[in-house]
Amino acid sequence: MTRADTRNFLARLADTLESRLPANGGDPSSSYTAKLLARGPDAFLKKIGEEATELVMAAKDNTPERIVAETADLWFHSMVALAYYGLRPEQVLAELERREGISGLAEKAGRPQP
Amino acid sequence: MTRADTRNFLARLADTLESRLPANGGDPSSSYTAKLLARGPDAFLKKIGEEATELVMAAKDNTPERIVAETADLWFHSMVALAYYGLRPEQVLAELERREGISGLAEKAGRPQP
Amino acid sequence: MTRADTRNFLARLADTLESRLPANGGDPSSSYTAKLLARGPDAFLKKIGEEATELVMAAKDNTPERIVAETADLWFHSMVALAYYGLRPEQVLAELERREGISGLAEKAGRPQP
Amino acid sequence: MTRADTRNFLARLADTLESRLPANGGDPSSSYTAKLLARGPDAFLKKIGEEATELVMAAKDNTPERIVAETADLWFHSMVALAYYGLRPEQVLAELERREGISGLAEKAGRPQP
Repeated sequence: MTRADTRNFLARLADTLESRLPANGGDPSSSYTAKLLARGPDAFLKKIGEEATELVMAAKDNTPERIVAETADLWFHSMVALAYYGLRPEQVLAELERREGISGLAEKAGRPQP
Repeated sequence: MTRADTRNFLARLADTLESRLPANGGDPSSSYTAKLLARGPDAFLKKIGEEATELVMAAKDNTPERIVAETADLWFHSMVALAYYGLRPEQVLAELERREGISGLAEKAGRPQP
Repeated sequence: MTRADTRNFLARLADTLESRLPANGGDPSSSYTAKLLARGPDAFLKKIGEEATELVMAAKDNTPERIVAETADLWFHSMVALAYYGLRPEQVLAELERREGISGLAEKAGRPQP
Repeated sequence: MTRADTRNFLARLADTLESRLPANGGDPSSSYTAKLLARGPDAFLKKIGEEATELVMAAKDNTPERIVAETADLWFHSMVALAYYGLRPEQVLAELERREGISGLAEKAGRPQP
């Protein structure tokens, strides 16, 4: 996929997750995400702790395919959380970009940087 | 920022993190990321567990700004892990897209979907 | 130490942690526990997530001394949480014993057991 | 239960968990612990990450019964890990006692203490 397509995918995934919210007609019987969102925060927050642990174990095992798959699981469930709280992945990327800008300034000023 | 810019940012952030690897001349004394990468997996994997917990707490408190900031922390440190293991965020996004494709097919076939 | 001494230690440790509560005169400037308790739940809950991750990493490395040390860290910080919420390790042990009793009954009845 | 009984319980629970090891004839079809131990480290380590997250959520909700139950889950699964690696809860308690001794000395010397 091209860069623009990939970016479109992240925004589209967020749109899809939002459509799974109970208020938007998400159907827990046909969608895993709709089921998580209908059960409330503890259901998907528990998955964030679980997937973070699985990513750590995959990394300790140094298994590239599992590292990618567990990172995907972790990002997916954190995007489910964002959808639940009315937030967007674009805001997360903007926060990361803001920090990079700050560290770039720090670099120019000779201070430690990310 | 435009969609293309945002996408460029993710790839550019990965490039920046890779430049912080010891093998690429990353300087632990001037860069937080270079210090994490130089100290080895346990240093940044521990942060993944820590940031996942902080995201869970921010979500339980329902504080939007902290949810965004902690998600940024979590994604940042998982991208540090990807850089350490020679992997790219593009692979994570491709995995997420692959699953969405599968669930789209499942949806058409009337089976449960993400 | 003898068995009775060890048991006395767990109860005594809980007593010590309770004495570090701000309401009981705990002094954040001279005690790590008092500082955690004074800063509130997020300070010690974050440690629980962090120490759980460190235990997982020590286990993956199969390093017995670190496994013991990280388990001690994890139990210590969960006992700090118990102290903060007015709970006792005796209640945790009683819950474990209650479950063992149930599973013992299950075993007798031929059903799956812990 | 008396203090000695409680202490006996912790040692007895460790004995029970050890009897669930595959090498000791643990039967995965009739015992939850035997199933975890037979599946190997990732099975019970994943639970440690999961139960730590659930304890954090119970604490944020300030629900005493769930805090006790999740702490019991967390201690139980860390004792499963100890059993797998040939370690004992007595070693964890001894480590905690050792630290308390050190902090007691620190207290006498006017330095920060746990």
